[in-house]
Amino acid sequence: MWSYHSGMTEYRLTPLAQSLPATVPFVGPETQERAQGRGFVARLGANENVFGPSPAAIEAIAQADHWMYGDPESFELRQALAQRLGVSMEHIVVGEGIDGLLSYLVRLFVGDGDAVVTSDGAYPTFNYHVAGFGGVLHKVPYSADHEDPLALFAKAAEVDAKLVYLANPDNPMGSWHEGAALTAALAHLPQGTLLVLDEAYIETAPAGTSPEVPLDDPRLIRLRTFSKAYGLAGARVGYAIGAPELITAFHKVRNHFGMNRSAQAGALAALGDQGWLGHVQHQVADARDRIAQIARNNGLVPLPSAANFVAVDCGRDGAFAKAVLDGLLARGIFVRMPFVAPQNRCIRISCGTTEQLDAFAAALPAALSDAIKS
Amino acid sequence: MWSYHSGMTEYRLTPLAQSLPATVPFVGPETQERAQGRGFVARLGANENVFGPSPAAIEAIAQADHWMYGDPESFELRQALAQRLGVSMEHIVVGEGIDGLLSYLVRLFVGDGDAVVTSDGAYPTFNYHVAGFGGVLHKVPYSADHEDPLALFAKAAEVDAKLVYLANPDNPMGSWHEGAALTAALAHLPQGTLLVLDEAYIETAPAGTSPEVPLDDPRLIRLRTFSKAYGLAGARVGYAIGAPELITAFHKVRNHFGMNRSAQAGALAALGDQGWLGHVQHQVADARDRIAQIARNNGLVPLPSAANFVAVDCGRDGAFAKAVLDGLLARGIFVRMPFVAPQNRCIRISCGTTEQLDAFAAALPAALSDAIKS
Repeated sequence: MWSYHSGMTEYRLTPLAQSLPATVPFVGPETQERAQGRGFVARLGANENVFGPSPAAIEAIAQADHWMYGDPESFELRQALAQRLGVSMEHIVVGEGIDGLLSYLVRLFVGDGDAVVTSDGAYPTFNYHVAGFGGVLHKVPYSADHEDPLALFAKAAEVDAKLVYLANPDNPMGSWHEGAALTAALAHLPQGTLLVLDEAYIETAPAGTSPEVPLDDPRLIRLRTFSKAYGLAGARVGYAIGAPELITAFHKVRNHFGMNRSAQAGALAALGDQGWLGHVQHQVADARDRIAQIARNNGLVPLPSAANFVAVDCGRDGAFAKAVLDGLLARGIFVRMPFVAPQNRCIRISCGTTEQLDAFAAALPAALSDAIKS
Repeated sequence: MWSYHSGMTEYRLTPLAQSLPATVPFVGPETQERAQGRGFVARLGANENVFGPSPAAIEAIAQADHWMYGDPESFELRQALAQRLGVSMEHIVVGEGIDGLLSYLVRLFVGDGDAVVTSDGAYPTFNYHVAGFGGVLHKVPYSADHEDPLALFAKAAEVDAKLVYLANPDNPMGSWHEGAALTAALAHLPQGTLLVLDEAYIETAPAGTSPEVPLDDPRLIRLRTFSKAYGLAGARVGYAIGAPELITAFHKVRNHFGMNRSAQAGALAALGDQGWLGHVQHQVADARDRIAQIARNNGLVPLPSAANFVAVDCGRDGAFAKAVLDGLLARGIFVRMPFVAPQNRCIRISCGTTEQLDAFAAALPAALSDAIKS
């Protein structure tokens, strides 16, 4: 019988759960809006795709039978992906965004004390999952604003890492490696370390950015998403491509009925509208150019980007970039910035509409001026 | 450097992951349709709500901005739920269906070898999660087709369980306990065992089915969903209600950006349309009566149900019920059945439209006749 008049209840969480903080990898823009008491003028911080999904995807979502559970196999979507990629359906698992798939992948591989390698300042949600399953994260620095495959793989060898994370293109810097360079680097991936290749931004990158090794190469798993170029961040649809033996392991732990049914339909329709994707790719490229021009007009240095955002070097340290960012936030422009020096000399602006980038251009001079004074 | 010419790759899964089967708690209806090469005439097996969600929910989903990530706090939905329930938002966490929330809850509490208690034949997805985190599941039998709270709690005391699962109303039997009986039983819940009270079907149950202990009673956590009476199974929106200290723990492990944005909007709209809910409750009650009548017309015994389905006693053993079920499936009627004796003498039919239940009524005599002959 419970007695609980002695103050705080002692819930019997696992020791690991007990040790974890109640945290969030990113503060959402809505949270910031509520704190400010008003909405943002331009939502340019979450690397969403304001150009939106194919109209066919919007229609498919609207027409879906919401009363039915989604197909636990995501059969039609996997079939369409397999056809486009030239692999079998057994090479593909669909999940609740790359975040969801990363959670399953880390859970499959990482237990208490297992070593994992990533770049210092790379995707925090991956780190969140590693910590959440008791792994030990080893970080290597960026090299000239690029994630550094050879340094990552050398560290993986040193610590006997089970997983090494690499995003190509990179978030938050927008930098990328040519696929051929990654293919060459793979020769140095230690035996027994799986490369977790996050290709969330692959559709906005130049052709040839994905390494041209077979999609079932057992050394790596590729993670892709409908959240970026396909414009369906709200739908939460990602997929992983790898060797069937590895893909099958997801079925041990995934939430089989976890996929939103209309999201499955929306992703399928989005995949079928490659014309819209091409249209968005042009819009993204134009918006990157516009962000770069705005940066240069203000004496700042835009970094080359293969993603749907541009990192802009504010020319001083992290405190200064943070002041610029705060000035933009105060003026209703939602942007984010890297977490770690020296990348945190930059702010990161997601591609936006002409009107949104006009608002960014209008706010930036005052934000800079305030930051210089502060 | 990898060498992998020796046949199967040795992926370094955790020992636990290595030991798990690649399994699925339920085979989805689409999978069965693909195997049969044709669609079902009546989809009456997944306890979905064919009467569907509020038109306002459908509209909210269609109008959502799919290009934006969902609000990681599910602020508006939690606010509306808190207002309706008379608690604060800190008492509520929203997640990817009850399945998703069960996964987080088990992960928080259950590590290698930890004891968990449930009923033999109760919700398999809970068991899947317990196994998936290395827990040891102890099962107690149903008592007269009801889950047996006192037996569950006694077993929990015996094995020092961290969690004990109880669905009220129960799935797959449709039976239920009055809230007052559960309140009385709670006095026997051992200290340190958390009651996981699955109230997925609470909206189709008689008033007074939920125990009238405070919603922040630390002894239990309640799980509810928009998948059943609210008709949004495809949206994957569930919520848990409990003491803030317990609810906060979810933020340690949950996928903060895991909620589908349109699903959040749809659930909020569904919650706001209590008139539609009342309408559905009547339709469900009528359909239960109709299923019961069809059963009686065929000499079978319908069990009383507080859920959106009816378990029908086929009067013999599990093999016989399975033959009836197969006969229905072969005739395009998708139903399911309990897994465990003696409940598996039943088949379970979800509430359907008049046309679907007509199809069920038309198919049942032949299915029964075939089963008797076999």
